[in-house]
Amino acid sequence: MENSKITPRTLPGFMELLPNEQILFNEMKETIRKSYEEFGFLPLDTPIIELSDVLLAKAGGETEKQIYRFEKGDTDLSLRFDLTVPLAKYVAMHYGELSFPFRRYQIGKVYRGERPQKGRFREFYQCDIDIIGDNELDILHDAEMPMVIYNTFKKLGFDDFTIRINNRKILNGLFESLKLSDPAEVLRIIDKLDKIGLEQVKECLSDINVTSNAINTIVDFISITGSNEEKISALKSLNINNEMFKCGVQELESVINTVKLFGMPEKNISVDLSIARGLDYYTGTVYETFLNDYRELGSVCSGGRYENLAEYYTDKKLPGVGISIGLTRLFYKLNELNAIKASRNSIAKVLVVSASSDISACVPISNAFREAGINTELFLSDKKIKAKFKYADKLNIPFVAVIGEDEIANNSVTLKNMKTGEQEQVTIEKAIDIINKY
Amino acid sequence: MENSKITPRTLPGFMELLPNEQILFNEMKETIRKSYEEFGFLPLDTPIIELSDVLLAKAGGETEKQIYRFEKGDTDLSLRFDLTVPLAKYVAMHYGELSFPFRRYQIGKVYRGERPQKGRFREFYQCDIDIIGDNELDILHDAEMPMVIYNTFKKLGFDDFTIRINNRKILNGLFESLKLSDPAEVLRIIDKLDKIGLEQVKECLSDINVTSNAINTIVDFISITGSNEEKISALKSLNINNEMFKCGVQELESVINTVKLFGMPEKNISVDLSIARGLDYYTGTVYETFLNDYRELGSVCSGGRYENLAEYYTDKKLPGVGISIGLTRLFYKLNELNAIKASRNSIAKVLVVSASSDISACVPISNAFREAGINTELFLSDKKIKAKFKYADKLNIPFVAVIGEDEIANNSVTLKNMKTGEQEQVTIEKAIDIINKY
Repeated sequence: MENSKITPRTLPGFMELLPNEQILFNEMKETIRKSYEEFGFLPLDTPIIELSDVLLAKAGGETEKQIYRFEKGDTDLSLRFDLTVPLAKYVAMHYGELSFPFRRYQIGKVYRGERPQKGRFREFYQCDIDIIGDNELDILHDAEMPMVIYNTFKKLGFDDFTIRINNRKILNGLFESLKLSDPAEVLRIIDKLDKIGLEQVKECLSDINVTSNAINTIVDFISITGSNEEKISALKSLNINNEMFKCGVQELESVINTVKLFGMPEKNISVDLSIARGLDYYTGTVYETFLNDYRELGSVCSGGRYENLAEYYTDKKLPGVGISIGLTRLFYKLNELNAIKASRNSIAKVLVVSASSDISACVPISNAFREAGINTELFLSDKKIKAKFKYADKLNIPFVAVIGEDEIANNSVTLKNMKTGEQEQVTIEKAIDIINKY
Repeated sequence: MENSKITPRTLPGFMELLPNEQILFNEMKETIRKSYEEFGFLPLDTPIIELSDVLLAKAGGETEKQIYRFEKGDTDLSLRFDLTVPLAKYVAMHYGELSFPFRRYQIGKVYRGERPQKGRFREFYQCDIDIIGDNELDILHDAEMPMVIYNTFKKLGFDDFTIRINNRKILNGLFESLKLSDPAEVLRIIDKLDKIGLEQVKECLSDINVTSNAINTIVDFISITGSNEEKISALKSLNINNEMFKCGVQELESVINTVKLFGMPEKNISVDLSIARGLDYYTGTVYETFLNDYRELGSVCSGGRYENLAEYYTDKKLPGVGISIGLTRLFYKLNELNAIKASRNSIAKVLVVSASSDISACVPISNAFREAGINTELFLSDKKIKAKFKYADKLNIPFVAVIGEDEIANNSVTLKNMKTGEQEQVTIEKAIDIINKY
């Protein structure tokens, strides 16, 4: 045996935390879960393994290459790469047993065999909510999503963040109305605006034979600035005579007004006509979320409206709207930046230790602490008192309760606050009170 | 598209619940987590995928056949089949960064490609705790495990359960002292005691040439009955002159005495000299737990003491003790038997609905409910009031708050208790009070 040890190692791209970091991670996850439940979303927990033909009904290209796919016996299996496809499967399977609008959250690991690099993970948590309608889904639900994002990031301890919102119908309708021969190329040119400037954009558009009328309209569109209301009214005054465009503007206006009605501060939501133009999946409202002090993270919560969740599985029309937080990457980046505000750094709030090797007197006190709702570790190894304190220190346990002859005689404990170093002999009731107030 | 739908389906042996069942499942999981944290166990979350050579360092035979193993690129990967091997890897890898005794819990999915049958799962949750010592681990920790089991099953709503406890050294030492030529065969014969009776056991032992002295000792041993104390004193009076036997008896006595000191009721713990004799992994104390009203479930929480957690990865000696609850099967069986006591059947505690299609007045009330800590769904689809009540009913939401003209005029809500059917117009503060008290 001695000569044939296997080197213990964890796969690259798979996050594995030390306990003190895991406590922070779990607290973030729990905060998100509670925020989702606050709005009445129902929990779901689908398998990590699915049949490949079910999971990959829609996938292709880049996605398919990243899939963990394998055979077990004769069965072609894949690990889920997001939580949306399993949701589509689930709703199509259980359509008759669900109540619509069906509001669910799911927090779970997904798998993508990306090239490993710093801050990118192959196994990562997604925290999703979606609302699925049966045949139709009121636009008001598009306004609820930013409220959940707002509530969640507030609860995570952030204040300065911006939810950017747009509606895909606006640009699609605009392009349709301009009868562009190569809208994809036009989009590529527009996207270079920040780099090359307005005059260059005009020239490039002219080079691919966009009419000067169309160029003028495009320039008016990409020059829109101002408050949310100003942007919407500028969109209206473009006078684009196209149904899709009008519908998009109307939906965006409705969502912005409703979000305001819901009580969202102006500073946290911003119409951004440039976002998420590339995504095929979304058909209406789209969202991205930026932490303004940590812009380098990119969008930390994205999502949008889709016309038909489960068209690959069912004829039922199931429109939906949803958002997703990529928790593993978010945690990794915030932790690296020391930007996580945690309410607790330890599991046990108190370590009960005996001044001697006899733990008898520690038992009823530990039990009393636990009954008072305090996570309590009773130190059971026979070590020197100094080693016991060191252990509490390393685990960030905020209090140590020492029980020795004196404490037993007085029916008390000596409670030490590990941060301040203060200690006093107090009754058990008093100790409970001090710990619970911490 | 229309003609090429893929049938949405979930793999056999993979549990996928409807939301109302998922709420119950999550509550059980959460209860177990909280119970583990009450005793100061630290959270861990290791990857589901590991390198095959790391994960299978020790596996073989049946286990290996059940593994989900596959290649991705050139890498030989496997899905974890338990949480103990990943723990061994973790402790060996992070030895220098951990504080010992290292107490961790992990609640996560594991994978075993068993032949699918009712109530057996290929993907299932294990809820584990382990305490790992550095070179040594005080026997007191063996007594802490039953306390955690006791606390956990009490919190899960059970009262009548028995933790059976034994120590492997006792039988091993006994057999060693008897210098049996085929101890495995002797064990097989003893295990048939309930079926064939004492006389037949004696005859069978005699048939394989066990000496009559040895037969007498074995018969004395398997005839031991009585209270825990009586069993231990009977073991002592066997006068077996073997170090391992004596050590096992002494450890068992110490654990039983300490568990008593910890406050465990006598009826919940029972020395059972017959349990877990087959398991190679454990070297000392072993536990099994039975719900006495649901004996057909078998042991719902098992575990024990092992001498060396990570010998395949490191020269460090890391003794440990741990237990595991197979939650998926436990939930499945209890749910089938209608034996789960849940504290909540819904996520939202109140559904806020507008009597008209205008939701404006519902918004501040929903916000007020949420601020008071009440999970609140604001119904946003424009449906008839009857449909809104039906929705609340199907989701088991206990209260509906209706806001119409009258309520707006009176700055109030009409709160309906969906169980009793009672409804009254009350202030928002009063509504919060009623809902919070529910």
